[in-house]
Amino acid sequence: MAKRLLCIRYDGTRFHGWQVQPNGITVQETLQDAIERLTGTRADLTGCSRTDAGVHARRFYCTVEVPDTFTEQALCRSLNGVLPDDVAVLSSHTVPADFHPRYAARGKRYTYQIDNGIAPDPFLRQYAMHLRTPLDEQKLNETAQLFVGTHDFSAFCSSGSSVQDKVRTVTRSDVVRNGDTVLYTVEADGFLYNMVRIFVGTLLDVHAGRLTVEDVHAALSTGDRRFAGATAPAKGLFLDEVWYETSFD
Amino acid sequence: MAKRLLCIRYDGTRFHGWQVQPNGITVQETLQDAIERLTGTRADLTGCSRTDAGVHARRFYCTVEVPDTFTEQALCRSLNGVLPDDVAVLSSHTVPADFHPRYAARGKRYTYQIDNGIAPDPFLRQYAMHLRTPLDEQKLNETAQLFVGTHDFSAFCSSGSSVQDKVRTVTRSDVVRNGDTVLYTVEADGFLYNMVRIFVGTLLDVHAGRLTVEDVHAALSTGDRRFAGATAPAKGLFLDEVWYETSFD
Repeated sequence: MAKRLLCIRYDGTRFHGWQVQPNGITVQETLQDAIERLTGTRADLTGCSRTDAGVHARRFYCTVEVPDTFTEQALCRSLNGVLPDDVAVLSSHTVPADFHPRYAARGKRYTYQIDNGIAPDPFLRQYAMHLRTPLDEQKLNETAQLFVGTHDFSAFCSSGSSVQDKVRTVTRSDVVRNGDTVLYTVEADGFLYNMVRIFVGTLLDVHAGRLTVEDVHAALSTGDRRFAGATAPAKGLFLDEVWYETSFD
Repeated sequence: MAKRLLCIRYDGTRFHGWQVQPNGITVQETLQDAIERLTGTRADLTGCSRTDAGVHARRFYCTVEVPDTFTEQALCRSLNGVLPDDVAVLSSHTVPADFHPRYAARGKRYTYQIDNGIAPDPFLRQYAMHLRTPLDEQKLNETAQLFVGTHDFSAFCSSGSSVQDKVRTVTRSDVVRNGDTVLYTVEADGFLYNMVRIFVGTLLDVHAGRLTVEDVHAALSTGDRRFAGATAPAKGLFLDEVWYETSFD
């Protein structure tokens, strides 16, 4: 058997997130089904993160053990032959038996799309949150800077998380506009449950005057969830990239 | 009553094209339903072109007569409130009673997307033709230049067209690459039935060696469909813009 690290891309629209669960179809289960069709065996898959229902991924990494006969390229090509069209395998690399795609991750980048046109763009209806009110991307960007640095992000974490240490280092957090689309990009060494969606909700709440910059500072210093903003909808969120010690292109 | 020119955007995936037909739901019918819900009357709609099943539009123009009480802005906003999420009204302008969105068009721009990644990109599965074989965009672009100019494009028109004069002037025809996406852009004063899709099929057939540059010249000089290439799939095609004497933003 050989351990392979798969880089996959998926449109999260019809999935109940990554992780197998009883209430709906997940990406993990879909990939397990595809691998079982090829190898005849139900394999365990370990993902680099647990994405929520409706969240998309441009580059998501997971590991699986497969018979040696499935070379890196053959595995990639065969899986793409049996996967549904909303999941694709971009690459397959052999990794050591103790490689863990979550623990080995040095950092991740997420992007969040806001459709700021007068009507929801038909081409973005599953890939962006729509907000008709004109957004000032400069103002959003100023607020976004407040997240940069090493902080206890407890206030930006949904309840239900079992993680104890909520200190993370955000190395990039900015907002740019491209036509009617406003794009938020954030990079960190790790993310808490719903952290990016609460960042976006906070940016929008400050923009709308529902929160102040002082509230954001208070959220960062006290860890109190009530100082942070709402959780923005899942469909605008993309896991964009994950970094490891070596690159797996 | 007032005549309004609507600029609409639609994801053509689930539509059997623009024009009302018995075999499936069309964009025209969807828009007629929405207008009827607002005004209580079934209105005639005239479109700027007949797009095929699966073809998309970033800016498609059509006219409709509505009661004066529906101001330009109110019409736009109300329609977006009742339309399904794969059709949006971008703007509404008042035009003279004799304005015809097809005859008044000075020119149009279409784009065609080819997904040239190793596996079909989940985010482009409805918006691009997938080709795994690496494409040389320089070579495609050289062939694309052959279409520029005033020609009888009979060889690049599917049978079933009732148009007599098949002379058109192509003012732009080029191919660029953006990562794994290869984009063909073409502008002309008018287009024949399936013309852009046959242009793309011809570019790909020359690239693959199934046709030669001499065949393309022969297609242009003789008008014989057999010298031109296959018809590329609908889903990669976007009506991108239509020009009128005055701009309707």
